[in-house]
Amino acid sequence: MGKVITGATMSLDGFIAGPEETGFDLLFQWYGNGDVEIPSASPDVPPFRISAASAELVRHEWADIGALVVGRHLYELTNAWGGRHPLDVTTVVLTHRRPEDRPEDDENFVFVTDGIEAAVAQAKELAGDRNVVVNGGQMARQCLEAGLLDEVGVELVPVVLGGGKTLFGELAGTPVQFEGPVAVVQGTGVTHLRYRVRR
Amino acid sequence: MGKVITGATMSLDGFIAGPEETGFDLLFQWYGNGDVEIPSASPDVPPFRISAASAELVRHEWADIGALVVGRHLYELTNAWGGRHPLDVTTVVLTHRRPEDRPEDDENFVFVTDGIEAAVAQAKELAGDRNVVVNGGQMARQCLEAGLLDEVGVELVPVVLGGGKTLFGELAGTPVQFEGPVAVVQGTGVTHLRYRVRR
Repeated sequence: MGKVITGATMSLDGFIAGPEETGFDLLFQWYGNGDVEIPSASPDVPPFRISAASAELVRHEWADIGALVVGRHLYELTNAWGGRHPLDVTTVVLTHRRPEDRPEDDENFVFVTDGIEAAVAQAKELAGDRNVVVNGGQMARQCLEAGLLDEVGVELVPVVLGGGKTLFGELAGTPVQFEGPVAVVQGTGVTHLRYRVRR
Repeated sequence: MGKVITGATMSLDGFIAGPEETGFDLLFQWYGNGDVEIPSASPDVPPFRISAASAELVRHEWADIGALVVGRHLYELTNAWGGRHPLDVTTVVLTHRRPEDRPEDDENFVFVTDGIEAAVAQAKELAGDRNVVVNGGQMARQCLEAGLLDEVGVELVPVVLGGGKTLFGELAGTPVQFEGPVAVVQGTGVTHLRYRVRR
């Protein structure tokens, strides 16, 4: 049985998106500042070029991902990654209403309208023994609140954005303590930190 | 000539204080979860008991501190640390008005009323060749905005607070990029990260 994981690239002052959806160029510099190329399955997203240390970590992690869960906001913001997520897995989109421009669920996107539990359950079914990654702060928040989350990955980058969206947004039941970090890996311009949710 | 450094213990979601000044017990758990005792010069603050890894790092850093700069808010919040700062150095307090319950500047506290530049200059004079540490998010923000800051230390702890005060508050001129981390040390329940301000 796989795990349910959330991951986010976060600024030094705690923001996963800057004010009014800015700052992504700075947050995601580490996707392009290295020598190791990792292919992208998205026609809109170029191959990743990351440092050897980052690659050593995320290659293993990404290979273990069986399905993704994202919110409608991220799906729209990325323009559905041009048709398929860079990580080359089926993406479950939690939404209030199915988009009209996509005829049916396919191998790229599955739409779920009845809540985070159903979205994660669907993704787990798709992932089999592999892990489910839940992306976007609001999805991560709902997942943690529902007790569905096993691990949190933070890619901490040396930029201060001064405002924006925080890791788990307006999380209920705070403070919440985690175990770890169970892993700390220093890449170029990014510190990869891994935590476990306490049970 | 010493450096001007700010340091803060920060939650995994980027807060150096929780909502309405809560969360300090969780933020500062690492001050008491280890085996290595480091004395405190404050009558109100018990000796630190930190992990060997944390001690190895902060012993050197703390020995290099020649003076502190804090804001009036932190001075009041801590009740002036009972008379002397735990790190056993003179603390420069930036304030609009001198507190009436303290007769004159002494070896414990010096009060400066004419801005962050003056406060840092005063602290540098006191520190000599050693470093000046600027504490409290608002002081750190003003220091960074005034181009006075050389380094930033973040002690990242595995707790999500969900709200509160961020590392540099409402910093002007964002985004701001830093160099590093130039050091990453994993203690027990805390990750010590050190960054340099870009010139």
